Amino acid sequence: MRIAELGQAIGRTVELEGWIVSLRKSGGIRFLGLRDGSGRVQVVARESDLREDDWDRTAACSQETAVRIAGACRADARAPGGVELDLRKIEIVGASAEYPIQPKEHGVDFLLDRRHLWLRADRQAAILRIRHAFTHALREWLDREGFIGADTPILTPSACEGTTTLFETTYFDEKAYLSQSGQLYNEALAMALGKVYCFAPAFRAERSKTRRHLIEFWMVEPEMAFCDLDGCLETVEELLSSALAAVARRCPEELRLVGRDPAELEKVRPPFPRISYDEAIEILRQEGLEIPWGEDFGAPHEAAISKRFELPVFVHRYPTQAKAFYMKPDPDRPEVVLSADLLAPEGYGEIVGGGQRIDDGELLAQRLREHDLSDEDYEWYMDLRRYGSVPHSGFGLGIERTLAWVLRLEHVREAIPFPRMLYRLRP
Amino acid sequence: MRIAELGQAIGRTVELEGWIVSLRKSGGIRFLGLRDGSGRVQVVARESDLREDDWDRTAACSQETAVRIAGACRADARAPGGVELDLRKIEIVGASAEYPIQPKEHGVDFLLDRRHLWLRADRQAAILRIRHAFTHALREWLDREGFIGADTPILTPSACEGTTTLFETTYFDEKAYLSQSGQLYNEALAMALGKVYCFAPAFRAERSKTRRHLIEFWMVEPEMAFCDLDGCLETVEELLSSALAAVARRCPEELRLVGRDPAELEKVRPPFPRISYDEAIEILRQEGLEIPWGEDFGAPHEAAISKRFELPVFVHRYPTQAKAFYMKPDPDRPEVVLSADLLAPEGYGEIVGGGQRIDDGELLAQRLREHDLSDEDYEWYMDLRRYGSVPHSGFGLGIERTLAWVLRLEHVREAIPFPRMLYRLRP
Repeated sequence: MRIAELGQAIGRTVELEGWIVSLRKSGGIRFLGLRDGSGRVQVVARESDLREDDWDRTAACSQETAVRIAGACRADARAPGGVELDLRKIEIVGASAEYPIQPKEHGVDFLLDRRHLWLRADRQAAILRIRHAFTHALREWLDREGFIGADTPILTPSACEGTTTLFETTYFDEKAYLSQSGQLYNEALAMALGKVYCFAPAFRAERSKTRRHLIEFWMVEPEMAFCDLDGCLETVEELLSSALAAVARRCPEELRLVGRDPAELEKVRPPFPRISYDEAIEILRQEGLEIPWGEDFGAPHEAAISKRFELPVFVHRYPTQAKAFYMKPDPDRPEVVLSADLLAPEGYGEIVGGGQRIDDGELLAQRLREHDLSDEDYEWYMDLRRYGSVPHSGFGLGIERTLAWVLRLEHVREAIPFPRMLYRLRP
Repeated sequence: MRIAELGQAIGRTVELEGWIVSLRKSGGIRFLGLRDGSGRVQVVARESDLREDDWDRTAACSQETAVRIAGACRADARAPGGVELDLRKIEIVGASAEYPIQPKEHGVDFLLDRRHLWLRADRQAAILRIRHAFTHALREWLDREGFIGADTPILTPSACEGTTTLFETTYFDEKAYLSQSGQLYNEALAMALGKVYCFAPAFRAERSKTRRHLIEFWMVEPEMAFCDLDGCLETVEELLSSALAAVARRCPEELRLVGRDPAELEKVRPPFPRISYDEAIEILRQEGLEIPWGEDFGAPHEAAISKRFELPVFVHRYPTQAKAFYMKPDPDRPEVVLSADLLAPEGYGEIVGGGQRIDDGELLAQRLREHDLSDEDYEWYMDLRRYGSVPHSGFGLGIERTLAWVLRLEHVREAIPFPRMLYRLRP
């Protein structure tokens, strides 16, 4: 039986396997905290109830000792989960040496060096359960809406978003690069399957050490044929709000433990506010953060814009020069593109980037030349404009950045089991 | 509206967007085949029913022309999907030049060079829909059983399964390698969360050109704390059979199109036969494929063993010397380990590998020395045996190899959108 299921076992004696998180002694009674990955429960050991060897074993229960126990399950309104166990038998499965992570403040480098153990902490395990519930809910919405999950390659012969931040490797006799986005391949798949998504790790060799950057991060990237910018933004809204509502429903206790009231997530409902890049520039001017028209926003700019809104806010129609080569120009105003970024509230910055792609072959060829991208590398991508080109749009939603906002994390590093950051490749 | 939903639109006029797959003319009638990624439908254009410009446009419908149409939906028992449309209006969204892939036999290199277009073919799109249904069903079972999906890193400082087939890259000031398996990290996560899985791409730089090898492939890897070899094999059986039953239920038409009767998948039910390595050696002797005790099996051996069984067959307890350093020796017979491979029927070879891991710290340290693996690199992994070590087991199921068997593919390359093979990194 697992701890999460104990509510169904009241009045019965059950067997559990797990790890000791705490031991408190009080005369002839010992209180053991037990976790098994599904939850946490208090086990009460009474000297008077136990055989001597079982009682002696409870004394050996240092932090993280692995045990197998039998206990009588009873309701206790004050206990987390509403149940408590009275110990009947205990067996030590694996002893634990002095556990390096104590219930005190450790420095973050100390903890990151021990990430393989730190993951066992209540807060870290709760974050991972929420991450699972969130990614599960994202897929669930996409699958229900008829999207086909299709895996795009990690090893690619050319760069999607510029060449300065690529990881390079030798692929037999040539160079290959780790993917920064599945988008270009997604576009081919959308022409075959209509609505698709990839859900995969992406890699950016950025020498930046901010609370928003991971070298290896996960993204979900939907791509839709016959879809314009408006359709794209509606998809972002529906996907994100439905996934957050699912997380609020499925992980209320974990959310509270991490410090987010589930009711706040349920308030994230469409429509999200939409402002143009030009309107954002005006906000920045008012805030004393003026930047020249045409430049992209940095973290302070995004924070200044998003603090005006309670919901995530779309900033659309960025200057063409600030965005990637494949963005479709606004037909009414070709100096801006039909793109949008979604900025999270509370200063957490960009969590979604996307928009409508160029569907005109001649314009795409011109853009490739302007960006000095090789014809040969993009010949296949040009084919998508030669054989039944259609309006199409898509976006990428960053998992860790979104979780950082949802869980009010100080740093994205806690949102992934084994973060990869500048100079941090271990454990 | 999408083609897959037309069954609910009989008697109504609907709008569809998609691509022309065929055009057949017969006097004042033209038959257009239309696909939209969700399905395929026949659209009947009658000169007498249409405005002249619409009728003229139907003549321009070369293969892969993108169109937007309005059509009256009616039931037709002879049609695939049971519906047909009478054309009312047609608009050309994107013209199509002469499409390189014709309804004739092309060589496989020709098709792989055009993989971005080949994906649009009925058979290829059906395979991708089945792939999606299969991976969806795998996750569904794991989620229902209380497994937490947790992402393990791709960029790692050391090798899990030997160093000769690793892709290397520069990670700022040091070397990093692309992951061949998430297992070691999964073990840490299982100690935190009980039952976990990762579902990610894996990379093997193998210079082999067989029908079973991809350089980049996807694997699902469950790992369970407090679980022995028997528990592990039961999990494999339940996971695989439940996912195949779901595919049979959700994709019967796609399966038939690809050449597999859905009823055959429903017959893949537990228990799967189990034979020991020693018994497998005896089968090989009988088949005239004798190999020395201690050697691992190759493709011909696996085919000879699996052809004796209608179901996938577990081969368990391989010689210690043939398997990875972390495999737990059989306490009754330490020259073999508590491992098992699952061999698919019909000669498709190994689709699952797994077993019970060493939980004893001293033995693990000895194995690391025997395999010349650096103490420093595995210090964190050793920690899992220092702080509450427990019996634990897990396995990896290869997505493309399993699909190759399920769909009777000649080669695993068709089981993934953009296959990466020896010397093939494009498109």
